[in-house]
Amino acid sequence: MSNAYATLVASFTKLYRYQHLAQIVAWDQAAMMPSKGNEARSAAMAELAVLMHDTLTAPQLASALEAAKTETTDPIEAASVHEMTRQWRAATLIPASLVEAKSLAGTKCEHAWRTQRKANDWAGFLVNWKPLVECVRQEATLLAEASGLSRYDALVDRYEPGMTSAVIEPMFADLKRWLPPLIQDVLVKQRTEEVVAPTGPFPIAAQRALGLEIMGLLGFDFEGGRLDVSTHPFCGGVAEDVRITTRYSEDDFVQALMGIVHETGHARYEQRLPRAWVHLPLGVARSMGIHESQSLSFEMQLGRSRPFLELIAPLVRKHLGDQPAFAVDNLAKIYTRVRTGLVRTESDELTYPMHIILRFEIERALVEREIEPEDVPALWDEKMLAYLGADTRGNYTDGCLQDIHWTDGAFGYFPSYTLGAMYAAQYFAAMRAQLPALDAKVAAGDLAPIFSWLDDKIWSQASRWETPELIARATGTPLSASHFEKHLRARYLAG
Amino acid sequence: MSNAYATLVASFTKLYRYQHLAQIVAWDQAAMMPSKGNEARSAAMAELAVLMHDTLTAPQLASALEAAKTETTDPIEAASVHEMTRQWRAATLIPASLVEAKSLAGTKCEHAWRTQRKANDWAGFLVNWKPLVECVRQEATLLAEASGLSRYDALVDRYEPGMTSAVIEPMFADLKRWLPPLIQDVLVKQRTEEVVAPTGPFPIAAQRALGLEIMGLLGFDFEGGRLDVSTHPFCGGVAEDVRITTRYSEDDFVQALMGIVHETGHARYEQRLPRAWVHLPLGVARSMGIHESQSLSFEMQLGRSRPFLELIAPLVRKHLGDQPAFAVDNLAKIYTRVRTGLVRTESDELTYPMHIILRFEIERALVEREIEPEDVPALWDEKMLAYLGADTRGNYTDGCLQDIHWTDGAFGYFPSYTLGAMYAAQYFAAMRAQLPALDAKVAAGDLAPIFSWLDDKIWSQASRWETPELIARATGTPLSASHFEKHLRARYLAG
Repeated sequence: MSNAYATLVASFTKLYRYQHLAQIVAWDQAAMMPSKGNEARSAAMAELAVLMHDTLTAPQLASALEAAKTETTDPIEAASVHEMTRQWRAATLIPASLVEAKSLAGTKCEHAWRTQRKANDWAGFLVNWKPLVECVRQEATLLAEASGLSRYDALVDRYEPGMTSAVIEPMFADLKRWLPPLIQDVLVKQRTEEVVAPTGPFPIAAQRALGLEIMGLLGFDFEGGRLDVSTHPFCGGVAEDVRITTRYSEDDFVQALMGIVHETGHARYEQRLPRAWVHLPLGVARSMGIHESQSLSFEMQLGRSRPFLELIAPLVRKHLGDQPAFAVDNLAKIYTRVRTGLVRTESDELTYPMHIILRFEIERALVEREIEPEDVPALWDEKMLAYLGADTRGNYTDGCLQDIHWTDGAFGYFPSYTLGAMYAAQYFAAMRAQLPALDAKVAAGDLAPIFSWLDDKIWSQASRWETPELIARATGTPLSASHFEKHLRARYLAG
Repeated sequence: MSNAYATLVASFTKLYRYQHLAQIVAWDQAAMMPSKGNEARSAAMAELAVLMHDTLTAPQLASALEAAKTETTDPIEAASVHEMTRQWRAATLIPASLVEAKSLAGTKCEHAWRTQRKANDWAGFLVNWKPLVECVRQEATLLAEASGLSRYDALVDRYEPGMTSAVIEPMFADLKRWLPPLIQDVLVKQRTEEVVAPTGPFPIAAQRALGLEIMGLLGFDFEGGRLDVSTHPFCGGVAEDVRITTRYSEDDFVQALMGIVHETGHARYEQRLPRAWVHLPLGVARSMGIHESQSLSFEMQLGRSRPFLELIAPLVRKHLGDQPAFAVDNLAKIYTRVRTGLVRTESDELTYPMHIILRFEIERALVEREIEPEDVPALWDEKMLAYLGADTRGNYTDGCLQDIHWTDGAFGYFPSYTLGAMYAAQYFAAMRAQLPALDAKVAAGDLAPIFSWLDDKIWSQASRWETPELIARATGTPLSASHFEKHLRARYLAG
């Protein structure tokens, strides 16, 4: 290890420890904190954000990076320095004052949103949101000037390194071409299907017990993580202590259960990141899209598949009692049911990408200053009608106030969801080619081949490769949306 | 505000925000964290401790303190600078390396203790404890050299400013004279009393609901705090978001319930600290003894009193069902029952001070290097036999492994418990002289006069006065143990 690299490891280890604090108090804020704690919490988190920014932008770190680039010969060290440089570059472009202003504005906006969403209070939300959007635009401008990317692409690059609107737009244009007719075909096909609705109430304690058992089946390590409740489900915490959340309704267990499967996918990626690199940028998850590809591997490729539902149907009956709706055939219909609903997180695999395309188009225009925050509800209404035939006028709760991403300033994140769905479809296409009798193994409870494939190809690789190389190494071919289209046609139109 | 004072306020505001992070992750570690998170958590907490130490010992803070002392004329500002100086002085005496070593050793020792205590594993505990004790001794030596106090008194001074063994020893010698005979008299008196034991099980959900209702009665602000579970109950978090914990047993609600009353006393002190000073050393609770005087005002002076038990008996019946044991007379007997048990936190008001005297004598000898960690079990056995007639040989679980204080390095803390009991007895003596018909009001559910007295005399004063002045201003006379003795004789021998 060169001297310069040792200096870098010391600095990034310190940052990793600060990041630990930031993650745990952020989890607490969402899952535990009472309302009057918010002001002090926001101030403490902003102070920590400034500290992390200062640590990352210290002059001695810049010179150590410079020196390490020439001194380092080991390929892993070189990859490590490359990832350190990525973080450093992103941070040095943003002044500390803007980091603090955005953190404060985001925390304030998000906290108020928790009640404003329920109250359908767009006007109240807008008051907190406008300053946040302004911070994001300033940030995007600075990043764009330095990288030569457009303002929006400069934000996307933080979540999905190397990805640009020039790649996303044609792919989304393609989806806009074949997906709405496919949705219509499936809606017609499903119109004549008999689906038995589960009859509640489903006590929350029983739902939680069911969720915990399925997390166990999916390999979640409970000595290194927890399941709790928050308004917007997420996977947080740190690799050594992964905190996932869900939200329950006594009337419906279907969403919460598959939500737990989804977050468990995120969680296993974190729990299996290589411990040797965990304190370094090299050791973190590759990108938001790759992260989402894990949750969607668990939820969409595995979780809603017929063999997996065969496996868990007895557990559903064990915890929630027996009823006709819990027959495997019926569960399979429930979990592939297509509805043109208003809420992204409650939407199905088929309509989900249309929700994402809507957000992508709006947030890109917002960041590029083509529209103003005030314009969002009207645009939202117009696009929901065009893409999904849904009327959202006056309904902010299930309209533009539904997501947490815009309330805490995470613009540029949304495309990752649909990229993740495409990656996941491609993994499973590769797995089926490599692993014989996969479906029979799943139905028999043997999920090990899937986890071991993901562990080997994705989890253990952390940030060792750029995204395109990671995908190509894992699946043997570059990213192609064709696997996603094939998967959807097979699941929703076959049989 | 002078320039120097403004500089100080900025630095201490930063420290207050770091302290917020430290408190929340410490609460999480005790109440939420799964075991595999501990190593990363300990490292993150140690990193934060170093950061706080560095912030407090920065040269510009020292010069600002010096300047503020001459520039400041406002008495509140002067008191504020005085409290800042106290923190600064304590911190500058300890090098950062020792701060980090002690934090790491303490966290490691405490985490392992959670399983070692249950396993009666003294030998395993000793391995982690010896390095911690060595850190504490080094710390005590440095503090003693600077202050001219003895090593142990230098530690006591951190929890109870101005208090020394020269004051504590004669008071404890006095207790050792009159308390054991009083305990014997009460044991004889109670031998003929009929006490109906409550019949369990008491579901934990019902105990929690009862606890929450009584916390409400005691004025706990649920928008600014929570109730959770941990091995060793404590009051943590921050003034704006107070986290109290308890531990439940299905077989016994008696301890958990009064534990909640106790921690609620701590919590209300924190929740009512003046918001204008909350970010400054002036705004924190005065001392551990004063803090304990609040929990003991709630638990001992109020909670176990006949009028309070009249008030809560219907709530006990509401949540746990009716049974003969829940008659007010019987509850009063249960909550004043004296038993010479082994465990401090489960012991009663009367025998509690003897547990404290035992710990005081052992920890003082340990810090003064008169004994070694290996000697503790034998000394423990000897003193338990002498003071309480109890045999603890070979029982580490309920012997010297029972408390958290020694496992995380908080030596010098124990005397505060009995000082707190004396302060609390003195408050209530003063209150009874000033507030007419206090008992009748309590029984009728009007607790406002008590809270308003404590708020006015103690909570709102934060660290405005040195402890002796705070007590004298509140009660009209200096601290005297006579109120405690009178209180015990009246409660346990009258009638």
